[in-house]
Amino acid sequence: MANPPSTDGYSFDPFELDLDKAFEIIRRSGACRVGLQVPEGLKRAAPNIAKQIKEKTGAEVIISGDPCYGACDIDMALCQEVDIMLHLGHAELGDGPDNVIFLEARMTTDLKDAALNAVPHLRSKKVGIATTVQHVHKLGQVLKILKEHGIEGLVGPAGGRIKYPGQVLGCCYSTAKALEVDEFIFIGTGQFHPLGIALATGKRVVAADPISGEVSKIDPQPMLRRRCGAISRAMDARRFAVLVSKKPGQRRMELAKRMKALGEGKGKEMFLVYLDNIEPDRLLNLGVEAAVSTACPRIALDDAAKYRIPMLTPPEFEVLMGKRDWEEYRFDEIYE
Amino acid sequence: MANPPSTDGYSFDPFELDLDKAFEIIRRSGACRVGLQVPEGLKRAAPNIAKQIKEKTGAEVIISGDPCYGACDIDMALCQEVDIMLHLGHAELGDGPDNVIFLEARMTTDLKDAALNAVPHLRSKKVGIATTVQHVHKLGQVLKILKEHGIEGLVGPAGGRIKYPGQVLGCCYSTAKALEVDEFIFIGTGQFHPLGIALATGKRVVAADPISGEVSKIDPQPMLRRRCGAISRAMDARRFAVLVSKKPGQRRMELAKRMKALGEGKGKEMFLVYLDNIEPDRLLNLGVEAAVSTACPRIALDDAAKYRIPMLTPPEFEVLMGKRDWEEYRFDEIYE
Repeated sequence: MANPPSTDGYSFDPFELDLDKAFEIIRRSGACRVGLQVPEGLKRAAPNIAKQIKEKTGAEVIISGDPCYGACDIDMALCQEVDIMLHLGHAELGDGPDNVIFLEARMTTDLKDAALNAVPHLRSKKVGIATTVQHVHKLGQVLKILKEHGIEGLVGPAGGRIKYPGQVLGCCYSTAKALEVDEFIFIGTGQFHPLGIALATGKRVVAADPISGEVSKIDPQPMLRRRCGAISRAMDARRFAVLVSKKPGQRRMELAKRMKALGEGKGKEMFLVYLDNIEPDRLLNLGVEAAVSTACPRIALDDAAKYRIPMLTPPEFEVLMGKRDWEEYRFDEIYE
Repeated sequence: MANPPSTDGYSFDPFELDLDKAFEIIRRSGACRVGLQVPEGLKRAAPNIAKQIKEKTGAEVIISGDPCYGACDIDMALCQEVDIMLHLGHAELGDGPDNVIFLEARMTTDLKDAALNAVPHLRSKKVGIATTVQHVHKLGQVLKILKEHGIEGLVGPAGGRIKYPGQVLGCCYSTAKALEVDEFIFIGTGQFHPLGIALATGKRVVAADPISGEVSKIDPQPMLRRRCGAISRAMDARRFAVLVSKKPGQRRMELAKRMKALGEGKGKEMFLVYLDNIEPDRLLNLGVEAAVSTACPRIALDDAAKYRIPMLTPPEFEVLMGKRDWEEYRFDEIYE
């Protein structure tokens, strides 16, 4: 199914969004005020979607204007303003406000070619399969191609913040870690998720991008060298900010307090800093020499270059404080 | 009094902050968790203040890391995390969460010279006096200098979101509007507040900066021309975002709904957009052609150049929609 007729001619291609389902839920609930939260990639469609909600359900719509980075990033203030919140593009993440409808954006792109491209690069006869939510409904295609080439594909179980078997999040690789395999095939775009699988499992990862058609073998060494560099640069810092996110799915206050106590035990000055979007200018004025981010792991691992001070994940801070050996480096994950 | 000894050698010069008073309130309240919110100009002092709170009261401190633009901008998420929130630098703004202590930052700078510098530029024998909160405790000096020069100084009454007689906010000029005078003297820094007085009262304004020593006669015409230009540029827009701030003292949802209805009545597509910090990149992705900001008036009036699309205040949108004559241009204010 491409876009349903209800999108009023507006195309989300290559995504499909079952807006009719959302309209039906809103109508049946009798909601008068509906919140609409969409990731940046779909923001341009938000006004048209708002217009359709109004037309199809009669409800007044308020669009969330703040950036949205995932299902971890529910607009709580908007949730309080409305009867129902329609959150587009991400899979539900376990516990959250009751009035949120998650409407996933699924990519129409087939995964057969990506799997075919990956096959020559695989070494094992049994491989784990992982992907992100927009492709998860097509993992059957990958299993089939692998089988045709005499390879057994395994898909790890859902659970915790992971809604679908085989799904990974930037902050959670439990479906991969549950599998006893020596090799993974990651279907999706970008290097962060397959790097996460490689670091979280310690196994070989072949990444196949269904959009570009490219295949690459993931080498975690460059990232590990950068992280080792960040830890070294933080060595002389006396003052650390421990960043705690306000975003409901990124808020790890207890972990932050443990990091604060760990640093203080080693004679460091540690400050808990609570914030919504973590951006470089937020830290400049605080005058700290390094930071530990307990928010989304990507802030330290993916955006490090944006910050003037070393930004560590909690396991990296443990390495710095001598509580963890570098050989036991752990990729920062959020499970609950 | 300069900085009290409790600041532990840390200087807030030229501001004075009675931190001892805050420590005493925290101690007496028995608070275990204290939030600390400071404006950008004091952010560098936040870690040292946090350290002192811990030392003097034993309470654990969480610093608000998001930008803070005024008493309108209480960090509500942090309020919910802590027993007491210490909000530095701004005067209380009427209703708000019960657990916030407002500790104003008062400038030690005398106002005599500023008043003396202004005297030759005044035309009337009776002038209104206005200033911002950091100078309001020294308005007596201005009254005295004026009197010595045969000029009667009048100070308008507090009330609503204005805590002190003679105080103005970027969003509220009620103390000035209450006075029957033909001329105002504004003591303070920057052009926005005296422009606000000029536009809100229609009267002559002489601005005297106690820091730089400069005096200027305020000419609202360039700003009015720019605003007329913004309204003209919005003329052909079909799609408008009506921006509503999440900040408790800037949230004007009912006004936003009236603006939406007004635009829709004139055949425009109007979208309510709820957001925390209003920044240019927030609007880029929404694909609207113009915006009406019901948040802090400075966003449309002071930051207009940062936005690619015309950004109007509610009264300006009324002009655009033909509901208000340009001759009845009104400076956007927030009273409650």
